[in-house]
Amino acid sequence: MTQTPALYDVCAVGNAIVDVLAPCDPAFLDAQGLTPGSMQLVDAARSASLYESMNPGVEASGGSAGNTVAGVGSFGGRAAYVGKVADDTLGGVFTHDIRAAGVTFDTPPLADGAAAGLATGVCMINVTDDGQRTMCTFLGAANQLGPDDIDADLIGASQIVYLEGYLFDPAPARAAFEESAAAAHAAGRKVAITLSDSFVVHRWRAELLAFIEASADIVLANEAELTALFETEDFDAAAARLASMVEVAAITRGAAGSVILSGDERVAVTAFPVDKVVDTTGAGDQYAAGVLLGLARGLSLQDAGKLGSLAASEVIAHWGPRPMTSLEQLAKDAGLALNPA
Amino acid sequence: MTQTPALYDVCAVGNAIVDVLAPCDPAFLDAQGLTPGSMQLVDAARSASLYESMNPGVEASGGSAGNTVAGVGSFGGRAAYVGKVADDTLGGVFTHDIRAAGVTFDTPPLADGAAAGLATGVCMINVTDDGQRTMCTFLGAANQLGPDDIDADLIGASQIVYLEGYLFDPAPARAAFEESAAAAHAAGRKVAITLSDSFVVHRWRAELLAFIEASADIVLANEAELTALFETEDFDAAAARLASMVEVAAITRGAAGSVILSGDERVAVTAFPVDKVVDTTGAGDQYAAGVLLGLARGLSLQDAGKLGSLAASEVIAHWGPRPMTSLEQLAKDAGLALNPA
Repeated sequence: MTQTPALYDVCAVGNAIVDVLAPCDPAFLDAQGLTPGSMQLVDAARSASLYESMNPGVEASGGSAGNTVAGVGSFGGRAAYVGKVADDTLGGVFTHDIRAAGVTFDTPPLADGAAAGLATGVCMINVTDDGQRTMCTFLGAANQLGPDDIDADLIGASQIVYLEGYLFDPAPARAAFEESAAAAHAAGRKVAITLSDSFVVHRWRAELLAFIEASADIVLANEAELTALFETEDFDAAAARLASMVEVAAITRGAAGSVILSGDERVAVTAFPVDKVVDTTGAGDQYAAGVLLGLARGLSLQDAGKLGSLAASEVIAHWGPRPMTSLEQLAKDAGLALNPA
Repeated sequence: MTQTPALYDVCAVGNAIVDVLAPCDPAFLDAQGLTPGSMQLVDAARSASLYESMNPGVEASGGSAGNTVAGVGSFGGRAAYVGKVADDTLGGVFTHDIRAAGVTFDTPPLADGAAAGLATGVCMINVTDDGQRTMCTFLGAANQLGPDDIDADLIGASQIVYLEGYLFDPAPARAAFEESAAAAHAAGRKVAITLSDSFVVHRWRAELLAFIEASADIVLANEAELTALFETEDFDAAAARLASMVEVAAITRGAAGSVILSGDERVAVTAFPVDKVVDTTGAGDQYAAGVLLGLARGLSLQDAGKLGSLAASEVIAHWGPRPMTSLEQLAKDAGLALNPA
């Protein structure tokens, strides 16, 4: 089909969340019954009691896909976001931060969310000394994202629509997810998905596989998510199977870097060195920002991967899941191009 | 007079504020008409328009004296705080963070503050690449702190009551300030004050000098505040004059460290090295935390100063004005004692 040039490099659909981040001891996770490195959904009461027991920390706009488009914006890319906040203080913070990152964000906030017990979603993130983050999410208003919030014109105007696997948890969001993929393909665009979390993969394994087979062009995952998806401990076999199902599969391996597969091509991308890993929250999200921008712009897999590694290295060196330094400037300083030569 | 042992090392009285911190270019400060490194008060409308134009960033509990007692708490010291938030989301964040730092905080929040246009105070902090911060404060509910909020028993139970010069701006807070000093001296305790900001000193020079002469035992200031107080560019002369008026004067000189004077004693304290200065917000506040805890515990001037330098080095290496690492642990690692041998 004939393609009009895309208005956006990436449009993301995700859970709109504000993060509360604080340092913790491993003993705290144990006492709270939390599995280190996991994300779990909590209700309002548990959210409040957990917050009460957390150390002092900082707040920052979050949400996996929101972090990714904020990263795309920081690279100077054109990005849009679809997600649901409430009409409250934290909703205002989320809206400010994503727009200030240069991202188009026009999903109407949930009116009277607080009255319905649906304030803007929050994620309580406890970070141990090694930078590992353990997350408890109260979805709140984010849970109310539904198919009506999907603007087919916006999706169709975006080179890549990026969906977060976390949306498989709330049913109306999953419907929005399917709708987004359909709108993207109807306009001849690409559909990317992140598996988000190995526990999400365990909960929705069959549904995720079916969705990837039917609708995904690009998949982002980490090692644990990938192996959970295929219920195997053989990384190479799992990567090959995923690659056979989609155009591009990008798999992160923490400090070991990442692997990107496409057809017969397989490139290994090294991680950028970091003096001290402070907080790994957002590492995968920022990696996705670089990779998706690179793919949307037609860079090679290696060059797209390098942008991902660069963005991840920026975010793990400080508290919070979004860049605090211009990724566009960092790319320039590192001699990485944002467009094909 | 006979002294009962103090329940608290430090009780602080200050403007209860939540910070919004974001990176900026020097050109942004210029376009906004902001003097680099300054603090200015803004009204709700200016606060909203400035926020609108700021880069994405992070939120963190702040307020100069609040930061200081959070630092005292992080050292494992016993601290209390008096300040006014509204009964809203950011007031909840402020309350959580200061209590989670181990600080007693029981000032009743302003009821229906939002209805009166008096939400919890916020400080918009724009930080340039060199770490310098420029602050615009909307006091909101903080402005409603008054003499009725001062609990003479709490003040009397604290080794040192610590007052921030910023409280000279709102008239009812200034009255609370005077009341606190009177309660401390009635109980035979020490009164400490920080000059806060050179612009505050210019606005209230005569009043500050009168207060110091009449009521202060300990004064904290930076070089600009000190020289503004005595309207001289001669640092040594100004330091000597201040030292002649109080028991202890502690003057910070940025990367050059600090000088502490008491009677005929004058000690120079070096700054702790930092790999990269990210955000200097809270540097003076954390220096004050170490110095005040040291003085409350009866450490030497040099040892109290070292605790101050250590705390300042922690906070300038990350975004936000309060410690994100246990200062007690850092002191232990650095071989600094928190109590006299």
